[in-house]
Amino acid sequence: MSNKGITSRSENYSAWYLDIIDRAQLAENSSVKGCMVIKPYGYAIWENIQRELNIRIKKMGVENAYFPLFIPLSFFAKEASHVKGFAKECAVVTHYRLKETDDGKGIEVDQSAKLEEELIVRPTSETIMYDTFSRWVTSWRDLPLKINQWANIVRWEKRTRPFLRTTEFLWQEGHTVHMSQEESEKQVKEALDMYMTFAREVLALETSGGKKSESEKFAGAVDTYGVEALMQDGKALQFGTSHDLGQNFAKVFGIKYTDSQGKVDYAWQTSWGVSTRMMGAVIMSHSDDLGLVLPPIIAPIKVVVIPIYSQENRDEVMKIAKDIVAQIEAKVSDVKLDDREYISAGFKFNEWEKKGVPIRIEIGGRDIQKGTVTVVRRDSNEKSESSIDSLTTEISMLLSDIQQNLLKRSKERLEKNTHTVDNYEEFKNILKSKDKGFVKSYWCGNKECEDGIKYDSKATTRCRVGSGSGKCIYCGKESDSQWLFGVAY
Amino acid sequence: MSNKGITSRSENYSAWYLDIIDRAQLAENSSVKGCMVIKPYGYAIWENIQRELNIRIKKMGVENAYFPLFIPLSFFAKEASHVKGFAKECAVVTHYRLKETDDGKGIEVDQSAKLEEELIVRPTSETIMYDTFSRWVTSWRDLPLKINQWANIVRWEKRTRPFLRTTEFLWQEGHTVHMSQEESEKQVKEALDMYMTFAREVLALETSGGKKSESEKFAGAVDTYGVEALMQDGKALQFGTSHDLGQNFAKVFGIKYTDSQGKVDYAWQTSWGVSTRMMGAVIMSHSDDLGLVLPPIIAPIKVVVIPIYSQENRDEVMKIAKDIVAQIEAKVSDVKLDDREYISAGFKFNEWEKKGVPIRIEIGGRDIQKGTVTVVRRDSNEKSESSIDSLTTEISMLLSDIQQNLLKRSKERLEKNTHTVDNYEEFKNILKSKDKGFVKSYWCGNKECEDGIKYDSKATTRCRVGSGSGKCIYCGKESDSQWLFGVAY
Repeated sequence: MSNKGITSRSENYSAWYLDIIDRAQLAENSSVKGCMVIKPYGYAIWENIQRELNIRIKKMGVENAYFPLFIPLSFFAKEASHVKGFAKECAVVTHYRLKETDDGKGIEVDQSAKLEEELIVRPTSETIMYDTFSRWVTSWRDLPLKINQWANIVRWEKRTRPFLRTTEFLWQEGHTVHMSQEESEKQVKEALDMYMTFAREVLALETSGGKKSESEKFAGAVDTYGVEALMQDGKALQFGTSHDLGQNFAKVFGIKYTDSQGKVDYAWQTSWGVSTRMMGAVIMSHSDDLGLVLPPIIAPIKVVVIPIYSQENRDEVMKIAKDIVAQIEAKVSDVKLDDREYISAGFKFNEWEKKGVPIRIEIGGRDIQKGTVTVVRRDSNEKSESSIDSLTTEISMLLSDIQQNLLKRSKERLEKNTHTVDNYEEFKNILKSKDKGFVKSYWCGNKECEDGIKYDSKATTRCRVGSGSGKCIYCGKESDSQWLFGVAY
Repeated sequence: MSNKGITSRSENYSAWYLDIIDRAQLAENSSVKGCMVIKPYGYAIWENIQRELNIRIKKMGVENAYFPLFIPLSFFAKEASHVKGFAKECAVVTHYRLKETDDGKGIEVDQSAKLEEELIVRPTSETIMYDTFSRWVTSWRDLPLKINQWANIVRWEKRTRPFLRTTEFLWQEGHTVHMSQEESEKQVKEALDMYMTFAREVLALETSGGKKSESEKFAGAVDTYGVEALMQDGKALQFGTSHDLGQNFAKVFGIKYTDSQGKVDYAWQTSWGVSTRMMGAVIMSHSDDLGLVLPPIIAPIKVVVIPIYSQENRDEVMKIAKDIVAQIEAKVSDVKLDDREYISAGFKFNEWEKKGVPIRIEIGGRDIQKGTVTVVRRDSNEKSESSIDSLTTEISMLLSDIQQNLLKRSKERLEKNTHTVDNYEEFKNILKSKDKGFVKSYWCGNKECEDGIKYDSKATTRCRVGSGSGKCIYCGKESDSQWLFGVAY
């Protein structure tokens, strides 16, 4: 299995990933360092992801809204640990005007137009939102408040990779305010579960989820929960996070409510988000050496129909092809007839294969005589012959079968490559091997052990996945927490 | 007609507008100067507008994509007239890191993290997109290229007003590349027509459209076409624009293609956009002194059902109310049952009236005995009694009737307040009167006349609306162009 212009996974996994993105026309680097252009085909996948996720977010009783792109420097500084976590990587707006250079030939920043207070381009919106929430929330009647925002985010990154880590990216950030710790803890887990279900049902990704360690948690949170997916190279990809903010932000932004008994207290908060990083997880999880492989639910084109004809039978083949498209469209959306004249059928096969279209239907003159077409499924690249009469039902079932099969593969990979280990030599060997994967081990919670493990194997704690009792894989001390370790993207 | 807390239009139109936005909970000022928070109810209207507009954009064969928020200063300077038009109002990113102050108590810009080249937060995306397009377009096979982007935009504004003029706003920007001037001119008009049809069919707004004058055109365009709506105070609101960019940008960014004969030429381009400013047009056009009035198609809640009960008949009334909601929901989306316990029915009437819900259904004990409910339509505030049996059909027809009625009103207002005038005294009197409106007059095209008119009456040319022959309203010279004049927002 290999395709012109795509590096194979075994040869160079990282180059393979970039090749897939390039050949499937998902995204490309822009002239702005670290910022990508999301191309139409890539953006169409993102729109499908958005649509599906939006339904699930609204089902939790959350409403969409929009807050400013800019955050005053002073807001940002209010929550002490929050600022430490984000200060390193900010785009700072200092001026608000340009002017012509003295020679009239160029343009430069107008130094007289300096802002009194610098503005930060949002690296996350807790501070600007919670300043507003402090005015929205006064009584128990205003709670719970559940807001979501779809927005662009900027974090200055030195090393970037399309979708996985870019200076600007797109995301959704949910922010909720509650009357009790119990209720906000419930929301944190509900968001985490929603992401894991979404990954399973829509992205065909089986994930692991749980609490993050102190060193890996969100700057300003009491606890962070993460969703982790395992890539084909055995590395872990953090897919989404859900934060229990406790009363940390409520206290600095003054979000207080009066309960039904007239008692005033600070509110309890959560925030949770997933980003265009999900695109990276989808691409890396399902694709093969021939190109992109997409779960049908998020595929912009679910079925492509390619007529194969000579000068003699062109009209006949095209007519049948159009009939077939019309027939399938009655039951399946996003069907495309590739009727381009100046391109060979072989080139078309190759192109849609690279773009990960779940089902390809080839219609040739000989097939028509037999009343059949050739159906190729992209997940397994299997070819079969299908009767035109029963095609619509078959395609519809096949799409659902592909979706299930991708999830099954993802689940099997996760299971096969998650190793429960209580011996540190074995632990290191696995994580330093080519296949890596997840290792489940007890850890005492001590930062020194976490650091030692990272030094030895590059692996970090991904999330807490179990209780019970065992010995810390590093120091041997008793522990009641089993953790997932992996080498992270 | 007046409502607690809402200034009447006759008293102070501008205060009325702000009151509507506040009481309907559409948006509010944020702590960042000139930037607003779009609240859930306002954002839900915007989402409906987006959804409807997106369908129409895609029907023109346009695909969505996403380009960087930041534009390098040097890009911005490439097209000479473009930079002059936008340089005044830019947010400039100069640094990429913050650090703790020396006393460890605060935070400040890290002066050592200065960008080599400043980045501008996009005030429009021609330059960053066309830099990319120059790599996408090489052959006639790549054309036409039709891209749309939904994005946030920043233009530094001194005086802001929610939705109408804010430092940050949301918009869509379409950008197309063509092989011929003819084709790009067709696209410019297609986009203009699409906006006018959209305004009519979705926003219930009748508009005027046509070419803008030289002084009002987009910086960098050969020609700009605008869509103008007339507000209730007789002022003009520019609702959307469509630009014929000719080869201006193609030449500076090097967008060239090889035609089928092997000849290389610069491409022809267009760009066109509408923004959250549309929200302002909708609010100002339809609302009354009781609050917001919304066209049903974009109303987040189309029908609200309010049960009126006493302790005795609570269960019976609630049961019927729920049945009615279920019945209507089978045919109409976005139906809400307001079953809040701690709020009086009168308070609920008032709240949904202010929020512009098109239809309110009141269900009381006495009505139920008769098998009827009270139906109130928000456009005319008329009450009527309806039989529960035929309610669903009636509601569905009523929604369509409200949509049509709002458009009819808008059309009548536009017609009634558009005056064809060939006498300059009359011209000035109309535009300086309280009712203002549009004036249609011949104008010679001379900037001095345009400036003189503006000095005399504050009116500007809105767009060219007719040909023929007449005398310039200002200087009396022969002219073949009839223009629409108005006092603009």
